Order: sequence, then C-alpha cells, then structure tokens
Amino acid sequence: MTSSDKVFEVSRRAMFAFAALPMLLPVSLLAQTAVTVTDPLPSWNDTATKKAIATFVERVTKQGSPDFVPPAERIATFDNDGTLWAEQPIYFQLAFALDRVKVLAPQHPEWRDKEPFASLFKGDLKGALAGGEAAIFEIVTVTHSGMTTVEFDQIVRNWIATAKHPVTGRLYTEMVYQPMLELLTYLRAKGFKTFIVSGGGIDFMRPWSEKVYGIPPEQVVGSSGKLNFEMRDSKPVLMKLPDLNFIDDKVGKPVGIQMHIGLRPIAAFGNSDGDLQMLEWARGGAGVRFALIVHHTDAEREWAYDRKSSIGHLDKALDAAQAEGWTVVDMKNDWKTIFPFGSK
Amino acid sequence: MTSSDKVFEVSRRAMFAFAALPMLLPVSLLAQTAVTVTDPLPSWNDTATKKAIATFVERVTKQGSPDFVPPAERIATFDNDGTLWAEQPIYFQLAFALDRVKVLAPQHPEWRDKEPFASLFKGDLKGALAGGEAAIFEIVTVTHSGMTTVEFDQIVRNWIATAKHPVTGRLYTEMVYQPMLELLTYLRAKGFKTFIVSGGGIDFMRPWSEKVYGIPPEQVVGSSGKLNFEMRDSKPVLMKLPDLNFIDDKVGKPVGIQMHIGLRPIAAFGNSDGDLQMLEWARGGAGVRFALIVHHTDAEREWAYDRKSSIGHLDKALDAAQAEGWTVVDMKNDWKTIFPFGSK
Repeated sequence: MTSSDKVFEVSRRAMFAFAALPMLLPVSLLAQTAVTVTDPLPSWNDTATKKAIATFVERVTKQGSPDFVPPAERIATFDNDGTLWAEQPIYFQLAFALDRVKVLAPQHPEWRDKEPFASLFKGDLKGALAGGEAAIFEIVTVTHSGMTTVEFDQIVRNWIATAKHPVTGRLYTEMVYQPMLELLTYLRAKGFKTFIVSGGGIDFMRPWSEKVYGIPPEQVVGSSGKLNFEMRDSKPVLMKLPDLNFIDDKVGKPVGIQMHIGLRPIAAFGNSDGDLQMLEWARGGAGVRFALIVHHTDAEREWAYDRKSSIGHLDKALDAAQAEGWTVVDMKNDWKTIFPFGSK
Repeated sequence: MTSSDKVFEVSRRAMFAFAALPMLLPVSLLAQTAVTVTDPLPSWNDTATKKAIATFVERVTKQGSPDFVPPAERIATFDNDGTLWAEQPIYFQLAFALDRVKVLAPQHPEWRDKEPFASLFKGDLKGALAGGEAAIFEIVTVTHSGMTTVEFDQIVRNWIATAKHPVTGRLYTEMVYQPMLELLTYLRAKGFKTFIVSGGGIDFMRPWSEKVYGIPPEQVVGSSGKLNFEMRDSKPVLMKLPDLNFIDDKVGKPVGIQMHIGLRPIAAFGNSDGDLQMLEWARGGAGVRFALIVHHTDAEREWAYDRKSSIGHLDKALDAAQAEGWTVVDMKNDWKTIFPFGSK
C-alpha cells in the first residue's frame, strides 16, 4: 500500500475509532554513592526546554513553595499520537484498521465491489480514502464494532504484538519517544497522576498503555463507540456497536478530561491543533500551569511536519504557544534520543 | 415538604442528574504489641457475611493462592445511594435539587404559575412530582445546568457543608454507613482500587467523594449531562448544558464501568435492581468474583425496604443473589453500627 499526506487530509472526527518498550528509569535522585545526582531526563539535551520542565515540577512539588500543589491535584494529561508515539506515515490505529480489513475480507464478499474496500484490495489506499471522512469512518466502524469488548481487546493485543511499522520495521510499541517515557516516569515519581487524553480509540490504547507507558486502563481517555450490555449464552457481554459515542479531540478533550478525571490538569502535553483546547484548559486554571507542544522538527531522525501536514496538523496551537509562552519541544535540538532503539 | 413512597415511583432515568465523615482505620493487621490482630471491620458482626468478605479478599490477595489477582486488576465498584450512604426518605441529590429550586426561584418569576414549580412553592412535593419522570427531569435539569463546572462544584460544596437530613438532622455526609467505610479502607489496604459507580450525578458526587470515602474524583463514575467547551471573557470554561449525556444505571452501569475504568471489576457492591447488571458483569468474569447486596432490613436503626419500594427497589437483584449465591448483607444482623454517629 502506498500513502501520501494528501490522502490523509481527514479530521479526527473520521478517525475516531483510533507505544513502546519503556526503559523504566529508577528516578532516585540520589545514587548509591555520596551526593551523585541521577538525571531523571537523560534523553533530553540541556536546553531551555528541559530547564522549563524541571522548574515547573520543582515549583509545584517543593514543600513550602508558594506554588505548591498537593499530590491529589497533580494531574498531567498527554496526547498520544505524535506526542508519546509517532504518527507517520499514517496514524497507527489506521494501520491497524487496514490490517483488520484484510483479515475480515473473506467474510465479506460484498466488499469486493464496494468502496472504500474495493480500492484497498487493489492496494490503492489513496483511491480507497478518496471518499474522505465517510470512507475512513466506514473502515474504522467495520473493524472496531461487531464484537465484544473482550474479543476486541484480544484482537488489539495480537496485532500490537506482531505488526511492524512500514518505515522502520519496528513494532509499533517501539515507536515511542524515549524522552517522553522518561518524562512520564519523572512526573509520576514527583507525585503526578499521568493520563492519556487522545483522539485515538480508548479501546485501542488500553490493552498496551500500562505495559508501554505505565499508564493503567482507567487513566486512558479517548474516543469511543457506543456499547451495549447484553446476555450471550447466558453470559453478560458488552457489544461494540457501529455508532459513535464520543470524539475526544479538539473541544472534546477538555470535555473528556472533565467527564473522566473531574479535575483540571495542571500540566498538558500535545503536538497538534487537536490538542489546542486541552492546552488552553490546563493553562486557564489558577496557579502555576504548564503547557508543552512537541514540535516535529527532525526529518532525519523522525519526521518534520507542522502547519501544512494533515496528520499532526500544528498551526493555531503553535501560534498560541508563541503568543502565550507555552513550552515548545524542538525535537531536533531538545532530544538526545528519539526512540528507545535510536532513530528512524 | 412532605414525601411519600408513591411520589417517588420514578426511575433513575428521570433522576439522572442527582456521604460521611469516615474514620480512616489504620488497617495494619499487626498491632504494636506482639501478635494482636486488629480487626479491619470492627462495625461488622461476626456473621457469615463478614466471613465471606474476608475469605474472598484472602483468596485473591494471598501470594501463592491459586486465585491470586494482581493489584492492577483488583477493581472494586460501589453503588452510592443505599450502598455507601442512605437514600431515604428521598435521594439526597433530589433534596439538593429541591433546595436549589428555592434558591433560584426569585430569578424565575415564570415558575410561579408553572408545574412542577408552582406546587413546590406551595410545599406540595407530591403534587409537584405528580408529573412523574418529566417533572423530576425538569427539576434536575434546571438545577444542574446553565453554569460552569467550576460554579456547580462550588454550589455542591456549599450545600453539602450545611444541608441537614430531614429525619436525623445530620449533615448528609454523616449519613454514610460506617461498615462500608471500613470495607472501602480494608479493600484499599489490600491493594484494591475502589470506584463509585452510581446512577447519581458524577458532578454531584465528586466534590466530596475523596473527603468522605477516600475515593478521588477520577474514580467516580456516574450519570452526566452534556458539557460544552467555550471561551468566556477570554477564559476557557465548560458549560453544563440541559441535555442528557449518559445514564449510569441498570444496563448503563457495565457500560459506564467499561468506558471509565476499562477493566472488569472482580468485586461489586450494590443494593437495588439498578445494580443488577453491574453485579452480573462483575460475577461473569473468570476466576473468583464477589457480588454483594446491602439489604435494608433495619427499620429501627435505618430503614427497611426492598421489593415494594420505589427508592432502592430491590426485587430481581435479590432473586439473583439467592439463585447465584451472592453475598447479602442483612443490615439488622450483620452491622454492629449503622452510621458513624450511631443510628437513626
């Protein structure tokens, strides 16, 4: 299959139904010998970005600080695609959906003459997605519904354990950002509760979020389809229906945060315009707040894209970051390492 | 205002938009002296019910037990009304809504001639609620929307800090069950994560759930109205809209659990038919599971009601408990103490 940016000029609304082998660093600040201080963020270069993170964390966590925030309120929310793991050349969840279409094809002879499936079977991804949002929505819907939550969980587990990224040949769960894994671990060691708040599918992320990010299922917020409780062979099941329940993107992110967490984050991390409202929401609260954008500036080691990209479209949020003084990660200069295995 | 059972023949669907000064017992099993064992459930009589709880907890938590469940999967879900705090003579959230109608009345002269408000102002609760679900829904809607989430949070905090129960004259947060507070603390000490899964309003419970039950906002699942993210005076707010979002009751409880937690509980606690599906869902998983129903059998110290009651209607779930061997708390015989302050 081929792919192109143009093909993916689709919003998260259509992509709704959409990791890493973390090196869990021991964040003991004192090593065994004398007063040696272990750097909790070794994959971050010593730039202003790293300093901004450390300064924020110290202000809100140090006993006696005028900006001290009690642990129960140390809520940090992270976008997933493009913030914790990569999202090029296509959202990984769409890669999953496309793989599922192939698996399901034999049970659906009617797809042979029906778009977007007919084009997919010819290897023509661009043609398949020419139908825009409706086409994506159909692909996601048929692959993310019609089974129980338990069955879908197993399907995701099987895929994520074996599917390989088309460019690097690595497992998708290896395509995570080592500096962000360190940041998650560092924040948790400092008493933060870390949450994923993603436009991706909640049921797609939960099977591996704890293993990869150390974030348990109940701390994952995402888009979802409707569920139906029913009895099957006298046993209760939850069926995944082909109906949209919630889009956790753009204005949906603060709503998802409130519905799910019930507390306003004091720190939020994103990489695209889909994260703008979440970052505004986190920054809009009282006291010291932190908003960070991962700017994809490294075409060599990862990918470089922002204002003109359809995936990870970063335009208004970049302007807001500059106007309001949010922290912007310049991947190329701020990150010593990209992926746990190195770089693209 | 008067109230009667008949008046409250309304389902949770209409009541959608609807605690305790816990004695946080140190659950150290070994006291300071020698081998003295401190009972983590001192308000429970030494009956089969208490033994059933202890046996379940030991089976799933003891290292080397064939039924061992890792801490990450020790999910316990609790209904609120009638399970953690009382629900008579009316759901406490409805008492809150009725108080809010009085506060808001001066701003709504049109209510004077409009039901259900006109009857309320005459002190005729029965007449006000003669409109059934639609009347309740209107009372809840007008009192739970039209403000920001932050404003509503403060309204609830003010009410819960001062409003008194009509029968006992106690704060509503004192009307919690001491044995259940001990059970929550005991389970957490044994590595469980405790969640509220209530038909009541999520935004109504969260302002006090941590203080009263030790359950933080992100571990509260409940019914909700829709929210809208918008800018007000250049600041982001979440407005509470007069539209239903989700009913966390009956078949909605397993759905709410999946949406919010993403893991199936291994233990569930309820008291009415509204909890039946949650209990079935918890029991339906693999391995050892625990389902418990609080049966209100003590007319003297609390209230006695089950099959014929509209509030806390317990009929099918009681049959299921008997048929499937769930644990049923006989309040009168199993509980040494009802409320932290004693009894009604």
